[in-house]
Amino acid sequence: MDKYDKEFLDYLQSELNTAVICDILDEMGYRNQAMSGRLHPLDDSYKLVGVAKTVLSYDVYEMPDEPYKTEIEAVDSVKEGELVVCCTNGSNSNGFWGELMATAAIARGARGVVVDGAVRDIRQLREMGENFPVFATGRNPLDSKGRCLVADYDCPVVCDGILVHSGDLIFADVDGIVVVPSDCAREVFKRALDKVQAENHVRRELQAGAYLKDVFEKYHIL
Amino acid sequence: MDKYDKEFLDYLQSELNTAVICDILDEMGYRNQAMSGRLHPLDDSYKLVGVAKTVLSYDVYEMPDEPYKTEIEAVDSVKEGELVVCCTNGSNSNGFWGELMATAAIARGARGVVVDGAVRDIRQLREMGENFPVFATGRNPLDSKGRCLVADYDCPVVCDGILVHSGDLIFADVDGIVVVPSDCAREVFKRALDKVQAENHVRRELQAGAYLKDVFEKYHIL
Amino acid sequence: MDKYDKEFLDYLQSELNTAVICDILDEMGYRNQAMSGRLHPLDDSYKLVGVAKTVLSYDVYEMPDEPYKTEIEAVDSVKEGELVVCCTNGSNSNGFWGELMATAAIARGARGVVVDGAVRDIRQLREMGENFPVFATGRNPLDSKGRCLVADYDCPVVCDGILVHSGDLIFADVDGIVVVPSDCAREVFKRALDKVQAENHVRRELQAGAYLKDVFEKYHIL
Amino acid sequence: MDKYDKEFLDYLQSELNTAVICDILDEMGYRNQAMSGRLHPLDDSYKLVGVAKTVLSYDVYEMPDEPYKTEIEAVDSVKEGELVVCCTNGSNSNGFWGELMATAAIARGARGVVVDGAVRDIRQLREMGENFPVFATGRNPLDSKGRCLVADYDCPVVCDGILVHSGDLIFADVDGIVVVPSDCAREVFKRALDKVQAENHVRRELQAGAYLKDVFEKYHIL
Amino acid sequence: MDKYDKEFLDYLQSELNTAVICDILDEMGYRNQAMSGRLHPLDDSYKLVGVAKTVLSYDVYEMPDEPYKTEIEAVDSVKEGELVVCCTNGSNSNGFWGELMATAAIARGARGVVVDGAVRDIRQLREMGENFPVFATGRNPLDSKGRCLVADYDCPVVCDGILVHSGDLIFADVDGIVVVPSDCAREVFKRALDKVQAENHVRRELQAGAYLKDVFEKYHIL
Amino acid sequence: MDKYDKEFLDYLQSELNTAVICDILDEMGYRNQAMSGRLHPLDDSYKLVGVAKTVLSYDVYEMPDEPYKTEIEAVDSVKEGELVVCCTNGSNSNGFWGELMATAAIARGARGVVVDGAVRDIRQLREMGENFPVFATGRNPLDSKGRCLVADYDCPVVCDGILVHSGDLIFADVDGIVVVPSDCAREVFKRALDKVQAENHVRRELQAGAYLKDVFEKYHIL
Repeated sequence: MDKYDKEFLDYLQSELNTAVICDILDEMGYRNQAMSGRLHPLDDSYKLVGVAKTVLSYDVYEMPDEPYKTEIEAVDSVKEGELVVCCTNGSNSNGFWGELMATAAIARGARGVVVDGAVRDIRQLREMGENFPVFATGRNPLDSKGRCLVADYDCPVVCDGILVHSGDLIFADVDGIVVVPSDCAREVFKRALDKVQAENHVRRELQAGAYLKDVFEKYHIL
Repeated sequence: MDKYDKEFLDYLQSELNTAVICDILDEMGYRNQAMSGRLHPLDDSYKLVGVAKTVLSYDVYEMPDEPYKTEIEAVDSVKEGELVVCCTNGSNSNGFWGELMATAAIARGARGVVVDGAVRDIRQLREMGENFPVFATGRNPLDSKGRCLVADYDCPVVCDGILVHSGDLIFADVDGIVVVPSDCAREVFKRALDKVQAENHVRRELQAGAYLKDVFEKYHIL
Repeated sequence: MDKYDKEFLDYLQSELNTAVICDILDEMGYRNQAMSGRLHPLDDSYKLVGVAKTVLSYDVYEMPDEPYKTEIEAVDSVKEGELVVCCTNGSNSNGFWGELMATAAIARGARGVVVDGAVRDIRQLREMGENFPVFATGRNPLDSKGRCLVADYDCPVVCDGILVHSGDLIFADVDGIVVVPSDCAREVFKRALDKVQAENHVRRELQAGAYLKDVFEKYHIL
Repeated sequence: MDKYDKEFLDYLQSELNTAVICDILDEMGYRNQAMSGRLHPLDDSYKLVGVAKTVLSYDVYEMPDEPYKTEIEAVDSVKEGELVVCCTNGSNSNGFWGELMATAAIARGARGVVVDGAVRDIRQLREMGENFPVFATGRNPLDSKGRCLVADYDCPVVCDGILVHSGDLIFADVDGIVVVPSDCAREVFKRALDKVQAENHVRRELQAGAYLKDVFEKYHIL
Repeated sequence: MDKYDKEFLDYLQSELNTAVICDILDEMGYRNQAMSGRLHPLDDSYKLVGVAKTVLSYDVYEMPDEPYKTEIEAVDSVKEGELVVCCTNGSNSNGFWGELMATAAIARGARGVVVDGAVRDIRQLREMGENFPVFATGRNPLDSKGRCLVADYDCPVVCDGILVHSGDLIFADVDGIVVVPSDCAREVFKRALDKVQAENHVRRELQAGAYLKDVFEKYHIL
Repeated sequence: MDKYDKEFLDYLQSELNTAVICDILDEMGYRNQAMSGRLHPLDDSYKLVGVAKTVLSYDVYEMPDEPYKTEIEAVDSVKEGELVVCCTNGSNSNGFWGELMATAAIARGARGVVVDGAVRDIRQLREMGENFPVFATGRNPLDSKGRCLVADYDCPVVCDGILVHSGDLIFADVDGIVVVPSDCAREVFKRALDKVQAENHVRRELQAGAYLKDVFEKYHIL
């Protein structure tokens, strides 16, 4: 798999956004890579880009012998540049991710987390700010211990309707979350950086009072 | 149709709010003019009042010959004092409204937009702030091109359960969105400005420690 | 019933949070005391702790003879240290709670309100800030007059799935809302204050780069 | 209020259906009289027409002193030709209506029941068949005792989105449930009986192989 | 655990129903043992009583090495008098149970199956009729292979909101599904058989035209 | 496009079912061709196979000049062996399909209809039975006139989550609805007919009392 260093990911994070990435994916024929909108950032100013590290859990209804075993393994194996993508199979019975998990993941070099499920310790997670953006579907103060169990990690998961593999590139911001397959990611980012330039021209002409019709005829962008 | 100049709309926007307008509409027998609560402002500080300019779209599943034709016409025909009211027939498949549309609408004098559907470019839309408040049901980074088509504009639409005609007055804030039929709008605004004064008395007495029972007996307002 | 003075409630409010309270309730065998996540604070920075004062309402479809009678009684009987817990039987037809009710409740010494239903006057409620945190499921600018009726107060209610009695302790923050039965509340708070200390050690070691596996083996906390 | 004898109601029940009644109401400008489709007949062969007798209940969370008092009054006051229309304010916590209530209502001359809520004793209710058709939103084996309380009867209620007054005519079948305001009911039924005849011609020509286009041009009915 | 022979279970199945069992559980203080109504019988005439045998599954997104291993073990270990209770953690991605599983379970003496999830082969399952009643939340023609995995069996599960242990008694019919804890089941069934008799008197008096008020005063049953 | 004569479609309809077709599509790598379960047959005994003829509509909120124009064209152009697949963009505001449309479609040789939306005239549609099976998401007695408008036909549509093109093969029964892309349909049907035979062996061994484990090891089918 392709390697992405921190500087390059930071650069993409500052220059791009999910909308322009979706436009490029559309052009390239990938029209179903955006999650459906059930996940939100804890703070709408967050942007997050990184390499997916997947985790899969499911709800249980008694205390397992080792409630955290696989979850600990998953977090301890995170590598720099990754973001954790958690599929809880739609659970809202507990706060799957919280402050201590985030603290551990940051120590491993994680860039953030995307949870199709609930989180807790939101005040503390927010204080981490741009160091570790959190995207989730809900909130729940209950511990995951005895309520869900991590079944596996680095396996394919479906997160808010979209299949994610470890190694896919994830771009997340206030508009939503997009999964960029690893084998076309370089091309997607290159084209997106170009399109951002073109949009600047369109925006400037519209701000100057031009009609949409004329600007669209000139640039074919909207 | 009655004309509303910018200063008057700005004045209403600063003095009134949706709750007091609903109270007056209740008094006048219009008890079903508030949307059901599925739309939210991008920023809870927004207030927005203007004359409705309706747009109606629906989802499509292939690229139309002219994907933006009627949409461009609709936006280019917006007039000062209007706000765009978009009915997408409940679509969440794409971001129906975004930064470039907003930029074009502002250039025509639009005051804001109400979308029963998803929007994108939220970071940039937020930067427009009070110049162009956006109310919507969801978020989606996907382009509308080839995902929905504007069927018509200036036609009746239903937005979050309430029928809206071009020319109706819309009042939107953090509490919700109210549709004021054009033929009673002047009367509604006049009475609402009066009621705001009366509420100030009630508030002051309650703040001074009076019991609700006594204040309600005196003012018949709650 | 046990008495809680303002200073003690303020102290709990500043030191504790819903997550740690849930962890202690789990230890003590109370595993279903957290609401399901449909209620949110008007501002995510809010924390709220107090003694429940319950109110029960239901929707009506004509104007009652005395639309506010029992509601006024309920609010006028609030005592210092209490927070109002409103069960509207799932109504979203009106803004059950608003600025004037809050103003009256504050004058009686109320600490805040939890509404399984919609509220209005959100801008003004937010200005009250930490003096009177509001948690609710929705927003609606319509008056409750002729739309719902308070049936009773100080009766058991179910709020977002959890049974609440007047006299129960309620702890609410950005993660959720927890109901602490009055007869075990002192013990719960005592143990929670201890656990907060232990978590500080764990956090510090993780921040220093320790692996989750090692920290969990040492402290058995996650 | 207009009186409807059993024979006339039986005749309407056999000759008409909700679709044709909606078509006539559309012609006469009443376009929002059909419930939204959450209620279903226990048996899809049922048809039911009668004069509405409304009942309003709400959920409670402890045993009332007289759990059945108003409910018994309501059922004991049913008159021949009526059907009971129950608004439970969206409750699914209990089976609001059951076999014994139905048996008592039949003894008073009731024609059936429409419950925006759950019912129980479904096997026995089905055995009553066309003597007492039951339409409801759900099923629940739990007793209503201590779970809901009848607040009032013969008051306006909203059932699956539509306002119903005692005295309105209700027509229900497998397609849905329509509320015919009492003051236009005679006219609606008269026109509907005529339209049923016209549809017979259309059907016959289509069955004989005519194209929709030609038949629609001839009859203007579809 | 108490043993229930086939004759006794068949007798309960023919004489009792979920409504009367819920009434007895209410009397004995168990007020939350009925599922919430998301599960329905494939045929409304079904009644089913048996000893719970629990199965827990979760969705996966790639083909496991042994997709059916634990599922086969679970079904092959069913014993006479048991009914299988499947918790899929809310999945509707596949038909968890189908004809061949049912055929195998019948051969082991199973009385039926309750699936909080979807089933397939419904035509064939229906042909099994009262020999093997099926209750489920949905329908899905897709195979479970590579879509879900059985994690465990004979573990506690939550089915439509109610905790079920292997060994609990389950009573299911058209009104809903009730879980009777094993340690009070004998007592519940005994009282329920008595109450069925009392209801016969009430029904007869109501059929004879008595008013609800009088009958309720005499029998205190409704 | 491949032609399917009536006899062959009738043969597939009697021999196959959606579950086995999904199993073959799984084998061939098409794992997302089954609708999500929101559509149901009007009668659970229905089976339906045919060539898709798509129709796309959307809700409108005033009477169009020619409310039925494109709809009539669509139905009048149906050809033998086709079934109509209607995408209403999720509308439940009206009964999109009814008796007269069905009568006209039958005269053109249509085999049935699949409506992602509501239908009306259900009693009459049911009387058509196996001659014209109807699958739909809901029921609504209101006419489509002035409530929705057919935008196009023979265009791609999404029906309950699955993309359908005119010319695709549709297989529908009580388990669900599957879309078989036209270019692999012959192969799918051939393999499905073979698999039905293999399942007969498995069923017979299980009925004879064999354990699942042994049968699965022998046939690798479940």
